[in-house]
Amino acid sequence: MYSVGIDSGSVATKAVLFNGKMIEKIIIPTGWSPKTAAKEAIDLLINKVNIDKKQVKKIIGTGYGRISMPFADKTVTEITCHGKGAHFLNSNVRTILDIGGQDSKVISLDNNGNVIDFAMNDKCAAGTGRFLQVMSNVLEVDVSDLDDITDNVKPEPITSMCTVFAESEVISLLAKGLPKERVAAGIVYSIANRGTSILNKVSLVDTIAFTGGVAKSAVIKKMIEKEMGKNLYAPKDSQIVGALGAAVIGWNLLNK
Amino acid sequence: MYSVGIDSGSVATKAVLFNGKMIEKIIIPTGWSPKTAAKEAIDLLINKVNIDKKQVKKIIGTGYGRISMPFADKTVTEITCHGKGAHFLNSNVRTILDIGGQDSKVISLDNNGNVIDFAMNDKCAAGTGRFLQVMSNVLEVDVSDLDDITDNVKPEPITSMCTVFAESEVISLLAKGLPKERVAAGIVYSIANRGTSILNKVSLVDTIAFTGGVAKSAVIKKMIEKEMGKNLYAPKDSQIVGALGAAVIGWNLLNK
Ligand code: SF4
Repeated sequence: MYSVGIDSGSVATKAVLFNGKMIEKIIIPTGWSPKTAAKEAIDLLINKVNIDKKQVKKIIGTGYGRISMPFADKTVTEITCHGKGAHFLNSNVRTILDIGGQDSKVISLDNNGNVIDFAMNDKCAAGTGRFLQVMSNVLEVDVSDLDDITDNVKPEPITSMCTVFAESEVISLLAKGLPKERVAAGIVYSIANRGTSILNKVSLVDTIAFTGGVAKSAVIKKMIEKEMGKNLYAPKDSQIVGALGAAVIGWNLLNK
Repeated sequence: MYSVGIDSGSVATKAVLFNGKMIEKIIIPTGWSPKTAAKEAIDLLINKVNIDKKQVKKIIGTGYGRISMPFADKTVTEITCHGKGAHFLNSNVRTILDIGGQDSKVISLDNNGNVIDFAMNDKCAAGTGRFLQVMSNVLEVDVSDLDDITDNVKPEPITSMCTVFAESEVISLLAKGLPKERVAAGIVYSIANRGTSILNKVSLVDTIAFTGGVAKSAVIKKMIEKEMGKNLYAPKDSQIVGALGAAVIGWNLLNK
């Protein structure tokens, strides 16, 4: 018997197969149809482990695209799922900073992984993965290479917080002949700075987890840690925390 | 004897020659050096009317780039200058909505044109001329043609307020085959809507002036009027109100 959690994000759709522990996970691009992506993610996930689809007894949907999952037994908000997922990975987690492709959020948990407070930004591209995407485009650097080129480089300050205004600023810094690496480090610093400020919207209790697509960047993690003077716990599977939480919720429903 | 007001904006530099009435005006692109543009604007302005530069007894700088005008006798904030300029054009003005290339603001005036309250957005590209610029780029329509193609067209709703997210939304609406005109009308509606909400940050007293580069759009004016159920006064020279106010302030200094 298994549960499946699917987190339908704006950029990626994540699915986790669970039976008390995480059996398998998958991440695919959402594309233009969250529904098609979610269906495909389940099929790919089940094919990976060679089980019968009928053994999946609960499907829990979460994330931005959860409204378009008629095949889910239940949908749960991403805040709740993130809490459950992070708690499952590390039961000491009391605070989560999640920076995704199109939003950023901070969540406070009690010691059972239940949400006691949260703050969310999904209205402004600044401080989200989208900011990094727009900027790497201008820099002509792949997002995944930002870490390599910015490690231990002195950041050139980017004064605009707004993605649109910061884009012009970056173009003009490069035109002035500033080294790409320093401008890139400035961009990374800028998003780390926004991460730190959203964190301060809740009362910070250790352990603090750093999740979401952007948490894959070791340099951003390091900069936030330096800004805050605290260590962050970044789970290896930083992108699937919400899907994992959804799977945990499904599993708990099967076993109560 | 003359005064000159120069308003150094992020997109355009405006200058006005004044001697109790507006003698001449000029608008040139700011480019990358506000200082060079401001100097050039003064020279072009004076050449236009064939007077001796020495007859200009006061130069007042205002706007975003006023810090880089060593040749100005004085610099005054754009809020104060906007108030004075609008009051000079129409002494009934008690409220100003100004939407420029990179900011938007609302100003409350007393019956002498002095500022009693204001609210300003210069941090977010949404609701500014930049929003229109980004969107017309995606639509492959010149900003100056937006009026023509959107008049009396039913707007397709754009749900994202953020310029970055709205850009993706517009791309996806066009990809779905929605008529360009309806998407363009949605964009125009979106900026009108933001204009209306910033207006509501001060207590609205008639007459309400609509100024700044974006006020040149008759369709945006019409939409804001419809949203608010009030008429707006849009001076013909909507872009030079700040420079005019600076020139008025200079003139008053000469004649006190
Ligand atoms: S336009 Fe800029 S500041 Fe405004 S919501 Fe978008 S990214 Fe944020």
